[in-house]
Amino acid sequence: MPPTRFVYLGPEGTFSEQALKTIPAAERGVLTPARSVPEALDALRSGDADAALVPLENSIGGQVGVTLDELAGGDPLMITREVVLPVQFVLAAREERPLDSVRSVAAHPQAGAQCRRWLREHAPGATVVDVLSNAAAAIGAAEGEFDAAVCAQIGAARYRLHVLAKDIADNPNAMTRFALVGRPGPLPPPTGDDLTTLAVYIAHDRVGALLAVLTELSVRGVNLSRIESRPTGERLGRYVFFLDCGGHVADLAMGEALQGLRRICADVRFLGSYPRAVNGDPPPRPAPGLADGDFADAAAWLARLRAGETS
Amino acid sequence: MPPTRFVYLGPEGTFSEQALKTIPAAERGVLTPARSVPEALDALRSGDADAALVPLENSIGGQVGVTLDELAGGDPLMITREVVLPVQFVLAAREERPLDSVRSVAAHPQAGAQCRRWLREHAPGATVVDVLSNAAAAIGAAEGEFDAAVCAQIGAARYRLHVLAKDIADNPNAMTRFALVGRPGPLPPPTGDDLTTLAVYIAHDRVGALLAVLTELSVRGVNLSRIESRPTGERLGRYVFFLDCGGHVADLAMGEALQGLRRICADVRFLGSYPRAVNGDPPPRPAPGLADGDFADAAAWLARLRAGETS
Amino acid sequence: MPPTRFVYLGPEGTFSEQALKTIPAAERGVLTPARSVPEALDALRSGDADAALVPLENSIGGQVGVTLDELAGGDPLMITREVVLPVQFVLAAREERPLDSVRSVAAHPQAGAQCRRWLREHAPGATVVDVLSNAAAAIGAAEGEFDAAVCAQIGAARYRLHVLAKDIADNPNAMTRFALVGRPGPLPPPTGDDLTTLAVYIAHDRVGALLAVLTELSVRGVNLSRIESRPTGERLGRYVFFLDCGGHVADLAMGEALQGLRRICADVRFLGSYPRAVNGDPPPRPAPGLADGDFADAAAWLARLRAGETS
Amino acid sequence: MPPTRFVYLGPEGTFSEQALKTIPAAERGVLTPARSVPEALDALRSGDADAALVPLENSIGGQVGVTLDELAGGDPLMITREVVLPVQFVLAAREERPLDSVRSVAAHPQAGAQCRRWLREHAPGATVVDVLSNAAAAIGAAEGEFDAAVCAQIGAARYRLHVLAKDIADNPNAMTRFALVGRPGPLPPPTGDDLTTLAVYIAHDRVGALLAVLTELSVRGVNLSRIESRPTGERLGRYVFFLDCGGHVADLAMGEALQGLRRICADVRFLGSYPRAVNGDPPPRPAPGLADGDFADAAAWLARLRAGETS
Repeated sequence: MPPTRFVYLGPEGTFSEQALKTIPAAERGVLTPARSVPEALDALRSGDADAALVPLENSIGGQVGVTLDELAGGDPLMITREVVLPVQFVLAAREERPLDSVRSVAAHPQAGAQCRRWLREHAPGATVVDVLSNAAAAIGAAEGEFDAAVCAQIGAARYRLHVLAKDIADNPNAMTRFALVGRPGPLPPPTGDDLTTLAVYIAHDRVGALLAVLTELSVRGVNLSRIESRPTGERLGRYVFFLDCGGHVADLAMGEALQGLRRICADVRFLGSYPRAVNGDPPPRPAPGLADGDFADAAAWLARLRAGETS
Repeated sequence: MPPTRFVYLGPEGTFSEQALKTIPAAERGVLTPARSVPEALDALRSGDADAALVPLENSIGGQVGVTLDELAGGDPLMITREVVLPVQFVLAAREERPLDSVRSVAAHPQAGAQCRRWLREHAPGATVVDVLSNAAAAIGAAEGEFDAAVCAQIGAARYRLHVLAKDIADNPNAMTRFALVGRPGPLPPPTGDDLTTLAVYIAHDRVGALLAVLTELSVRGVNLSRIESRPTGERLGRYVFFLDCGGHVADLAMGEALQGLRRICADVRFLGSYPRAVNGDPPPRPAPGLADGDFADAAAWLARLRAGETS
Repeated sequence: MPPTRFVYLGPEGTFSEQALKTIPAAERGVLTPARSVPEALDALRSGDADAALVPLENSIGGQVGVTLDELAGGDPLMITREVVLPVQFVLAAREERPLDSVRSVAAHPQAGAQCRRWLREHAPGATVVDVLSNAAAAIGAAEGEFDAAVCAQIGAARYRLHVLAKDIADNPNAMTRFALVGRPGPLPPPTGDDLTTLAVYIAHDRVGALLAVLTELSVRGVNLSRIESRPTGERLGRYVFFLDCGGHVADLAMGEALQGLRRICADVRFLGSYPRAVNGDPPPRPAPGLADGDFADAAAWLARLRAGETS
Repeated sequence: MPPTRFVYLGPEGTFSEQALKTIPAAERGVLTPARSVPEALDALRSGDADAALVPLENSIGGQVGVTLDELAGGDPLMITREVVLPVQFVLAAREERPLDSVRSVAAHPQAGAQCRRWLREHAPGATVVDVLSNAAAAIGAAEGEFDAAVCAQIGAARYRLHVLAKDIADNPNAMTRFALVGRPGPLPPPTGDDLTTLAVYIAHDRVGALLAVLTELSVRGVNLSRIESRPTGERLGRYVFFLDCGGHVADLAMGEALQGLRRICADVRFLGSYPRAVNGDPPPRPAPGLADGDFADAAAWLARLRAGETS
């Protein structure tokens, strides 16, 4: 069997590559950077790659809109795994040098923003210059264009930079969440602590329709760990909602909730059921009457009623 | 095959007998009056009767509490048919006589109340005397104890009374709704315009729990044509709710709603699915997305998702 | 000041008189029985009485429909107090006699039903004969028409009967709830544990409309201790709902909820705010954010926002 | 009176400047570009500016996260006006030249994405190079670094570029929505078609809490024209929701809804009530019972009830 061909949001040396390398299967795979999320997912859709690793959201910067848009449109794709990675920025330079000698620092605007306080305190003499990616920052430092770069550990390593300081993000708990995406096919089996991602289009009246969507979930005890809106592009005020729901499409509760959404929404795109990344929290416990066993018991009861029995 | 043994709320000559006689199968059956609703349903439970006809509610007098209580408790029974009968009272006497010669009128308190205005206008000289049933009123008039009786047409006929006046109820649209009840067994098939009757027990917090019950129905587009509460007998403030819901237990929407109620309620007793009595109204139309076909479409879609397809 | 003129559901010697006598003001008042609930409330409406005591519901027999109908229609009246009375039936006779010598027992049908098990066990040789009220039963026994009567303690005393047995109701916790009703006027002040009674008319679609009514309450944290439906008389399937809600019309939460009902319902009739009868339970505690203080805080915050402040 | 000091998201020649110039008051004001949204709002907070114009969302690119974050944190600010601007990109160059001679085009990544199809069709030989802003693209073209730039009309004019093609965005209906922001103070008066923007923090359980938020709006007939989530920064899965609601804080319905949110949410930050930008749609009509007059009627009714009247 040929090795799996993985594509990831490049360039090399960014957090996406680092995230991909946490996946065991990636060790025996072929890893190729893509210049953009659309390019990564196009490679997957065209069959040039077997799986793509792209960022979904960041606990500081929020949604990665382009990923959401690419998943909502085009040929259907499915998330098969999530990877949650702590965001650990380093300040790196071509050679070891004292921090107070740093005059210019290259940084992607979001990275700069996430390290602003640290930079002001520890490198007060440095001007921060915006560049287009974390890797571009590392390259700029490696080529001597800037005294230093804010980048990922993996980027410093790849461009042979010296790490002047580690863990320089102002918020030490910052995380980025990535999705491993594949073409439609057999789903990962339920594990008892899964997520299901959906893109949901609703029509017209916003409060009523969104309330109806949430009610379909709530009635079946399906929890929501994320809701994001993205414009549909038609006009201001038209959105598609991305929902991360607790549970697997194979679960009875989720199955019933999905059918409800299918009935009342203008459109629902199923974007995958996959194990929740371990985050130390215990898996959520269903409310009374809303465990899978309760659904099975109610289905058996209904079958008896339909057969003319009474309980 | 032996004839069906019907029991009905007696005595002979009341509206229950009249209602029973509207059912074609009753023509070839054996009809026996019972002294009370409990007695009628006991005969059914013990196997002494095959079906029982008892009143459920009246558009003036409201619920017939004893019927509801008897259906909610004891061995399970099932409603297989409803009969809706216009309430048409007559004033009847042993012989033809002018209205202004009537000095005493026997009437069941509810019957007297429903004809109060008419009696005041047309028999202003008469005293109305409460008796325990419409048939008791007719018997009292037949035996000469009272000058006249307020009773059903069928009661006047049975006790050979002359009808002095017809249609004397103040509200010409008054109706009584009866249930034909049987022991558990095969259900009447769905007709496209059915009712399902339930007895629902909820726990504790009243608004929240009742809201949850109604939400289970509303989410599946199941309408409610009646809701009655009855005390459970434990203490003031504890009720069982009787619901008449539009649809048949064999319908997909109703099936899903019933499962929801089963999960969240302390107890649900299924009391039957049966055709709605014709009342001239067109059958209600399901809201968009909530027809049986929409449920079937959503179930098929879910099956495809679970098989790894995407739409 | 002349003594208060009280009217109550008679005849003398029934539970209503007993309930009225638990009210301190009744000690100095003039107490007059009425032949029916409509007659009692007509006396109040016409000014012939100042207050009326009538039954609302019984923990075994359920709603007292005629009282609800009379409160919902006609000139507005208001409940100013509730009285909850344990239902304690006695078996009484003209003279002391052994139970096994009793051959006939007069009983109002509901009273007979509530003592059925006891009578079967302790007076198995007796035939129970239906009569029209508890007092009629006592009178029948006093006049020798029946060997004994099922009646209230107060009825046995009034008709000088010997009590053969006390506490003969099958359910020792049975309670009847009465309302003291007055003409509109100043309301009883809030006590911190009050009830508000409403008659609510909703239009058309049943689930949706009833759901909306309950949502108006639930959103303001107003609990529901009773919901009863009564036919409006127009046709089967049209109901008015009687709600007993926790709280006083002077409370902020209740005030907002009432405004909500007023806006969305076809009609709302306010039937009074009055102290909840002590039943040993602690007064219910409001949910987080739904205490009166939270409403006051939110109102003050809104006032600041409207003045151009921000918090 | 000194002229109003406006600050806007710079550099000069971008859509923000163009949007600011649609505001009449800006004609007599002093207009200063800021290097970033935080810098613009800092100038406002520090008193160096009187008003700031910043982008909120784009119908293609979605939310402008940094603006939302800056409004949710720091000293309170208020939106006093929204400006909705069609996104009309031009392709501009130092001199007039045929499109097929263009080899390199500078574009901000979002601008490039929005014109991708057009560029592929009309300038198939050109490489698109990412730069950090629309103005940077124009400057790059003006300085000869690139053959052409994708930029705003105003940017082409400022840097004296020739417009090679107009309206090159793939979606001709693309719009950007900007907010004019001020320090807290008197609110713009209600116009009958206003928006109110809120930042809402909810605790814990996601479906239930979000459902409760939407219910508070829905019950008062307040519609939602936008809902966006942003991470709070604490950890993945914690969000603040930005709501644009139809109505003005001075409206009765909105006032009641805001109080409800205040009571049930962990925190609510009011971000202003301001006229909805004209978009050709008629102002939305309130549902039955939910117009301002209905709220006033209900308040008057409640006042009468509290005074002891009955209707």
